[in-house]
Amino acid sequence: MQRVELGQKVLNENARLAAELRERYREHGVLCLNLISSPGSGKTSLLERTLQLMPKNERVALLTGDIQTENDANRLKKFGFPVKQITTGGTCHLDARMIERHIADWRLEDLDVLFVENVGNLVCPSSYDLGEDAKIVLLSVTEGEDKPLKYPSIFFKSELMVLNKIDLLPYVLFDPAIAVENARKVNPKIGLVKLSCTTSEGLDQWMNWINYKRKSLLTLKAEPVS
Amino acid sequence: MQRVELGQKVLNENARLAAELRERYREHGVLCLNLISSPGSGKTSLLERTLQLMPKNERVALLTGDIQTENDANRLKKFGFPVKQITTGGTCHLDARMIERHIADWRLEDLDVLFVENVGNLVCPSSYDLGEDAKIVLLSVTEGEDKPLKYPSIFFKSELMVLNKIDLLPYVLFDPAIAVENARKVNPKIGLVKLSCTTSEGLDQWMNWINYKRKSLLTLKAEPVS
Repeated sequence: MQRVELGQKVLNENARLAAELRERYREHGVLCLNLISSPGSGKTSLLERTLQLMPKNERVALLTGDIQTENDANRLKKFGFPVKQITTGGTCHLDARMIERHIADWRLEDLDVLFVENVGNLVCPSSYDLGEDAKIVLLSVTEGEDKPLKYPSIFFKSELMVLNKIDLLPYVLFDPAIAVENARKVNPKIGLVKLSCTTSEGLDQWMNWINYKRKSLLTLKAEPVS
Repeated sequence: MQRVELGQKVLNENARLAAELRERYREHGVLCLNLISSPGSGKTSLLERTLQLMPKNERVALLTGDIQTENDANRLKKFGFPVKQITTGGTCHLDARMIERHIADWRLEDLDVLFVENVGNLVCPSSYDLGEDAKIVLLSVTEGEDKPLKYPSIFFKSELMVLNKIDLLPYVLFDPAIAVENARKVNPKIGLVKLSCTTSEGLDQWMNWINYKRKSLLTLKAEPVS
């Protein structure tokens, strides 16, 4: 019982900080996207391809979380955009405080898009609001169609499901239609992009989705507060 | 600070219960194996093949953990061995209390091997001792060679690494030698079995490893307590 109450206190404090971050992002028109998946579903590879496809004058920055190592930040830095590694040292998720600390010396007014790559974990990160505009869940076709039903929280909270590694479909027993059906049992409104970072299939749709989100945000910003 | 202390209290209580379970397993000569991996690395498929290959007179039972659904228990029940699902309802790992409750109506003296399939999560389950004789970590070749360095705790604590889905090696950028090197940087003594449940390659080595563990346990039991 004490544990539950304390857990709730931690989550309440996180929610408060996340609301502050969201407010700041909105104020400066920054689109923040929080990418969540199991380890090895391809978050870093997708972000590599995303940064590669971004026009160099886009004002994009990236935070990447891991338990240990700076590997991901090193992979992502070569595209010339600001990248910071958040090494959690054992913690199984990112929280709003970690985000706040790591963006402290970035000027939000100089940013348009902030990507956050969460720790590889399909469970715990779904409980921590980071102030993002949208959570995005990646599911690789090697992981099985049943994952949305087994790990419903993150599919429920995500605006988009990226069905990744579709180049491997010929070699695995995986029916994308069943995976999508399962995801929509949990969250009927979840969007879908099927892609492969190896063949580039679907990457245009992914980039279009980001642009659509940016435009929605700017419209939101332009609307007078009533 | 309060959070750390409470977390420690939970872990201490878990350690106490796990020690009791271990004592009971030892007393009855039960080999308990705790399988841990990301979602979709193939724990359930490996257990399906294992139960299929087990002689029908072997006294084997299985507990399978998930956040939601009884899918895995349903997949595993068809082999005729006792199987129970542990549905954690949101909790990201199994703990010793859940194991204790779910084996309460099994007679340990009638068992030789107890497989525990943990919740799909490469982070949190590594902190919870379940009284097992050995933790086994599964890594699928689709997940990348860097995972042992990024999620070191579970590789450090595991006695065996199962490198799974090796039938997909021709289609992914994955060098098994690098993955093994990374795992042994974290845990120089970790054992290795490379296998594929699709082609059956390596399954004999896996079954031999289980037999070797059973024999070690019986030797341990036969030794007079000094």
